[in-house]
Amino acid sequence: MQVAIFFGSKSDTEVMRGAANALKEFGIEYKAFVLSAHRVPEKLEETLEEIQAQGCQVIIAGAGLAAHLPGVIASKTILPVIGVPVKAALEGVDALYSIVQMPKSIPVATVGINNSYNAGMLAVQMLSVNNNELKNKLKEFRLNMKKKFIEENAEGVEL
Amino acid sequence: MQVAIFFGSKSDTEVMRGAANALKEFGIEYKAFVLSAHRVPEKLEETLEEIQAQGCQVIIAGAGLAAHLPGVIASKTILPVIGVPVKAALEGVDALYSIVQMPKSIPVATVGINNSYNAGMLAVQMLSVNNNELKNKLKEFRLNMKKKFIEENAEGVEL
Amino acid sequence: MQVAIFFGSKSDTEVMRGAANALKEFGIEYKAFVLSAHRVPEKLEETLEEIQAQGCQVIIAGAGLAAHLPGVIASKTILPVIGVPVKAALEGVDALYSIVQMPKSIPVATVGINNSYNAGMLAVQMLSVNNNELKNKLKEFRLNMKKKFIEENAEGVEL
Amino acid sequence: MQVAIFFGSKSDTEVMRGAANALKEFGIEYKAFVLSAHRVPEKLEETLEEIQAQGCQVIIAGAGLAAHLPGVIASKTILPVIGVPVKAALEGVDALYSIVQMPKSIPVATVGINNSYNAGMLAVQMLSVNNNELKNKLKEFRLNMKKKFIEENAEGVEL
Amino acid sequence: MQVAIFFGSKSDTEVMRGAANALKEFGIEYKAFVLSAHRVPEKLEETLEEIQAQGCQVIIAGAGLAAHLPGVIASKTILPVIGVPVKAALEGVDALYSIVQMPKSIPVATVGINNSYNAGMLAVQMLSVNNNELKNKLKEFRLNMKKKFIEENAEGVEL
Amino acid sequence: MQVAIFFGSKSDTEVMRGAANALKEFGIEYKAFVLSAHRVPEKLEETLEEIQAQGCQVIIAGAGLAAHLPGVIASKTILPVIGVPVKAALEGVDALYSIVQMPKSIPVATVGINNSYNAGMLAVQMLSVNNNELKNKLKEFRLNMKKKFIEENAEGVEL
Amino acid sequence: MQVAIFFGSKSDTEVMRGAANALKEFGIEYKAFVLSAHRVPEKLEETLEEIQAQGCQVIIAGAGLAAHLPGVIASKTILPVIGVPVKAALEGVDALYSIVQMPKSIPVATVGINNSYNAGMLAVQMLSVNNNELKNKLKEFRLNMKKKFIEENAEGVEL
Amino acid sequence: MQVAIFFGSKSDTEVMRGAANALKEFGIEYKAFVLSAHRVPEKLEETLEEIQAQGCQVIIAGAGLAAHLPGVIASKTILPVIGVPVKAALEGVDALYSIVQMPKSIPVATVGINNSYNAGMLAVQMLSVNNNELKNKLKEFRLNMKKKFIEENAEGVEL
Repeated sequence: MQVAIFFGSKSDTEVMRGAANALKEFGIEYKAFVLSAHRVPEKLEETLEEIQAQGCQVIIAGAGLAAHLPGVIASKTILPVIGVPVKAALEGVDALYSIVQMPKSIPVATVGINNSYNAGMLAVQMLSVNNNELKNKLKEFRLNMKKKFIEENAEGVEL
Repeated sequence: MQVAIFFGSKSDTEVMRGAANALKEFGIEYKAFVLSAHRVPEKLEETLEEIQAQGCQVIIAGAGLAAHLPGVIASKTILPVIGVPVKAALEGVDALYSIVQMPKSIPVATVGINNSYNAGMLAVQMLSVNNNELKNKLKEFRLNMKKKFIEENAEGVEL
Repeated sequence: MQVAIFFGSKSDTEVMRGAANALKEFGIEYKAFVLSAHRVPEKLEETLEEIQAQGCQVIIAGAGLAAHLPGVIASKTILPVIGVPVKAALEGVDALYSIVQMPKSIPVATVGINNSYNAGMLAVQMLSVNNNELKNKLKEFRLNMKKKFIEENAEGVEL
Repeated sequence: MQVAIFFGSKSDTEVMRGAANALKEFGIEYKAFVLSAHRVPEKLEETLEEIQAQGCQVIIAGAGLAAHLPGVIASKTILPVIGVPVKAALEGVDALYSIVQMPKSIPVATVGINNSYNAGMLAVQMLSVNNNELKNKLKEFRLNMKKKFIEENAEGVEL
Repeated sequence: MQVAIFFGSKSDTEVMRGAANALKEFGIEYKAFVLSAHRVPEKLEETLEEIQAQGCQVIIAGAGLAAHLPGVIASKTILPVIGVPVKAALEGVDALYSIVQMPKSIPVATVGINNSYNAGMLAVQMLSVNNNELKNKLKEFRLNMKKKFIEENAEGVEL
Repeated sequence: MQVAIFFGSKSDTEVMRGAANALKEFGIEYKAFVLSAHRVPEKLEETLEEIQAQGCQVIIAGAGLAAHLPGVIASKTILPVIGVPVKAALEGVDALYSIVQMPKSIPVATVGINNSYNAGMLAVQMLSVNNNELKNKLKEFRLNMKKKFIEENAEGVEL
Repeated sequence: MQVAIFFGSKSDTEVMRGAANALKEFGIEYKAFVLSAHRVPEKLEETLEEIQAQGCQVIIAGAGLAAHLPGVIASKTILPVIGVPVKAALEGVDALYSIVQMPKSIPVATVGINNSYNAGMLAVQMLSVNNNELKNKLKEFRLNMKKKFIEENAEGVEL
Repeated sequence: MQVAIFFGSKSDTEVMRGAANALKEFGIEYKAFVLSAHRVPEKLEETLEEIQAQGCQVIIAGAGLAAHLPGVIASKTILPVIGVPVKAALEGVDALYSIVQMPKSIPVATVGINNSYNAGMLAVQMLSVNNNELKNKLKEFRLNMKKKFIEENAEGVEL
C-alpha cells in the first residue's frame, strides 16, 4: 500500500471516492479506512502504525465541520498528509479553515472543498518525487488530458 | 484542582488570563498548562490523566488558527471542555469554527472570540451544578455586578 | 426535572429533538418549552422561576436569526445555559454569532449549528460534575460509541 | 425628552456621540443611558417605563458583539427602536447580524456599523411623521448639506 | 396613502407581500410600485413626488443584489425609508450591506433579509409617532401576539 | 477630456490617485470630480451631461460602504463605468458587493478593492478599442513592465 | 469577430449564454470557445493570437472556483477582458475574489456572479467607445428598456 | 536544487522567508525567484524549464490577492506545487480561495495564510517520499520539537 485514505464517516464515501479514482488511473495501491479522530483515537493511532509498517508513503484524510482528522493524523506521523475539506455545513468553509490553518511545523496539504480527486492527484505527484517512471506517467496523463479536452471541445460551442 | 486551563503557546498567556481571573473571584482552584495537541500529543494525554486523578472537574482550552486543542481534549475525557477561540488570523473566525463545529457526541462548550473570562465564568457555573454554596456565590456575584454597574453609571452619560 | 430545553418556535422542534435524544440515553429528566424572548418575555421569566424551583440544573436554548433566546435566559439565571444556533438564514452564521459573542460575565456555552444532540451531551457532562455515577455512565457511553464505531466499520470501505 | 439613547458600556460613548450630534442639529431633546440588557435587565425595564412616561417617541440603542440590547428593548416597547451595530470584533458583522435579523413582528431599524449619526438622522425623520415643521427643517437641512457639499468641492480636486 | 412600497421587479412580489400584510393588520393605507432605480430613474423620481403629494409618510423599499433602490430613494426624500434586503445571491449579504451601510446623513432603516413583514411593522411604529390611537393598536397587537403565542404553545411540546 | 473620475468625498483622494497615475502614463486627458450620488444627485446628473458633451468616453467611479455611486452613474449614461470599491469598513467587502452585483442590463466594470490604478489601466484599454495607436502604446507599456520587472529582480532574492 | 467569449467547461454553457444574448441584441459578431487556462494553456495562447488577428476587440471570460481564466487571459493580451464569476462553490465568492482582485497593471473588468448578460452589455459599451452609431443603439436600447419596464408594470402590482 | 520558491514581488520576501528557514533546518538546497504569472509569464515558463532541468523536485509559490501564481505554475509542471496564501487584503481569504479551489486534475497543496514555514516543512515531507534518510531526519526533528516544547514549558505558566 502506497497511499492510505481516511475519513470519519461512511456518509463521506461518495465525496472521497474521487481520491481513489485518481490513484487508480496511475495504478497506485491504496486502502481506505473509516476512522474518527474524536471517536476512536486509539484505533486511529494503531492504524497509522500499521500502514506505515506496510510502506505507506502518503496519507489522504477527508473531514467536514471541525474537521480535525487531517491535522490530528499529521501530528502523529511524518508522512505528508493531504486534507480534503468536506462540505457538511457553512459551504465547507468551517472544514477548510480547520484543515488549512495548521500551526507552525505540522502542515496539512489542503485541496479544494469536496475535491478529493485533486487529493489523489497530489498524492501521485508526491509519490513521483525521486521516481522518474511515475513522473513520466504524470506527463503522459497531462498530455492525454489536453488531447481529450481539445477533442471534446473541437467542434466549438454554440451560444 | 477543580479546573485545568490549557493553551498551546505562551504567547496566548495574556488572552487566557481572563479565565483565571474569573476563577479567582470564586476561589476556585485551577492550574494552567501550555500544551499542544499537535506538538506534544503524548504529554497532553499524560497531563489529562493526571489532572483527572487530582479531581479536576472542568477543562478550559484556548487555541487559535486550526484550533484543535479543545476538540482533541474533548475526545480524550468525559469532563466538560470549554473552548476559547483565540484570534490569531481571520479575525478569529477560523478558531471559532474549528472549536464550535464539533461532530455528534463530542461537544465543546464554546465561548466568544478571545473571551476567556467567560470561559472561567462558565466553568464556575458548571461547578455549581449540585453545589448550592457555589450557586449562592454566583447569585451574589450577579447582584454585585448589577449594583456596581448601576453605581458606575448612576450619574448618567453626557453625549 | 434536571434539564430544561427552550426554543422559540414549534418549527424548530425537529432540529431540537437531538438534545432530548441525548438526554434520554442517560435517563436524564427534561422538559421542553416553546417560548420566545421577544414575544413573551414575561412568560419566559415566569417559566425560568418555575424550572429552577423544580430543581433544574442546566438549560438548553435553541434559536435562529438574531437568536437572543440563549443570551436573554443567561442574563436571568446563574444556571449554565447551552446555546444551539439554528440555521434559518445565512447558513446559521447569524445565530452562531448572536449566541457565542456574549459580553463579559454572561457566557452561553455554544455548540455547533443545528447540533442539538451535542447540547444534550454537554448537559449530561455538566450534570456529571460532582456526580460519579453519571461520570461512569459517560465513560461507558464513550466505550460503547467506540465499540460500535469499530464494529460498523470493521469490514472496511470500498472506494 | 423625545429620543432616548441607550448603550451598554461607557466605552461606547465616542461611537454613540454621533446620534446626539444629529439630534442637536434639529433641536431634539434626548437623554442618554448606559444600560445593559444582560447585566441590569430590571433597571433597563424600569428606565423604559420612565422614558415612555416622559413622552419619549423614538429609541436609539447601540451594541457590539452579541448586541442584544436593541432587540431586547424592542421586545419591551412598541416605540420604534433604531439599532447601531458597534464594531468590537469581527469587523462588527456579529453586531450587525444580531441586530438586523430580528424575528417576525419585532423589528429593529438598523443603520450602518458604528454609524450612530445616521441613527440620529433616522430618529429625526421618524419624529417628522405627522410633523410638518420638522419635515421643513429636514428639507432645509438637506438643501444646506447640498450647498455645503458643492461649495466645499467647488474648486475641484487635483489628482 | 400613508405608506408606499417599492421594489424593482415583479419577481419580488411574494417576498414583499409581508409588508402589505403587516400594514393591513393595522388598517394602514398603502400602495405598491414596481420601479427600478437603475432602469427607470426618472419614473422613480416622478412617483416619489406623487406619493408625497398624496400624503405618504413612510416608504418601504425592497431590493436584491447591489440593492441600490432604498438608498437612492432615501437620497431623494426626507421621509423615513425602510429597506428590505432581498435574497437573490450570496444568501442576501450583498443586499444587506448595500442597504445598511449608507453614508452619513442619508440613513435607511434596514430590517432582516427577506423580512418584509418587519418592514411593515416598523412602518406602523413610525406612523404611531405622535399618534396615540395607533400606539394603542400596537399595544393591543402585542398583547394579542403574546396571548396567541401562549395559547398555541400551551400544551407544551413533546421532544 | 476622455475620462472622468468621480468619488464621493475628498477623503478618498489618495485612494483614487492611482487612476490618474495610470491615465497620465498614457497621456490620457481626464478630470476628477468629488460628487455624491446621495447628497448631490442633481449636481451629479448635471456633471454627467457636461462631461459627455465634452467628449468623455469612459467614467471611473470610486466609493466605499454602500457604494452606490458607480451604479447610479451607470444608470444615467451609456458610457462604460468602471467601479473602484474603496475600503472604509468590512475590509471593503460591502463596497465590492454593492458595486459588482449590479442588476441585468446596467453593468459596472469592477476592479479590486482600493485598486484605482487598475481602473485607470482598464480605462486606457477601453479607449484603445478601435484605436491602434493606443493599442500600440499598451503593448509597449507591457513590454516595458516586463523588462523593468526582470531587471529589478535580475540579481535574484536571498531568503 | 468583435468579441470572443471563453469559458473552461461545457457545463458553464447555460450560465454564459447571457453574454451572447446581450451581444445579439446589438448585432455584435462573437465567437465562443471552451478553453482552460490550466488544462490547455498552449491552446489558449494560440487561440488568443488567432482572435486578435481576426480583429477581436473585447474578450469575455467566465470561470468558477479558483477562476484563473480571465486573469490569465488578461496577462496575455492588451485587449480589455471582462470576467464573469461563475458560481460553483462558496456561493461564487471564490470565483469573484479570484477574478476581481488582480494585481496592479493587469485589470479584469468584473461583473456580478453568474451575470454573463452584463458582461455582454459591458462589451457593447466598450465597443461603442469612438463609435457613435453603437452609442446611439445603446441609447435606444436604454429607452426601450425603460418603455418596456414601465409598460409591464403600468397596471401596478397587488400586494 | 531540490526546491524552488517563487513569489510575485520583493515585498513578500519577509512572509516567504519561513519556507527557506524550514528547508535550511534539513539541509535542503533551494533557490528563490521573484516572478509574476501575470507580468512576466514567458520568464516564468522559462524558469520552470530551467529548475526542472536542474533536478528540482518540489515547488513552493506564494501569492496574495487573486494569487494565480501557484495555480499557473501547477498547470505547467507535473511537480507537486505548494501554495502559500499571502495576506494582502481581505485577511488573506481572497488568496486562500484563489489557491486552494483549483479545478479537477491540477491540485495545489495549500498551507495556512502567511504560513510559509509550513510550506517548507511540507516540501521536506514530500522529498522524504522514498527517502528513508530524510524520513529519519523528520522523525528526529519531531522528537526535538517535542523535547524543546516540553522544556520551554516545564516550569508551567502563571495565570
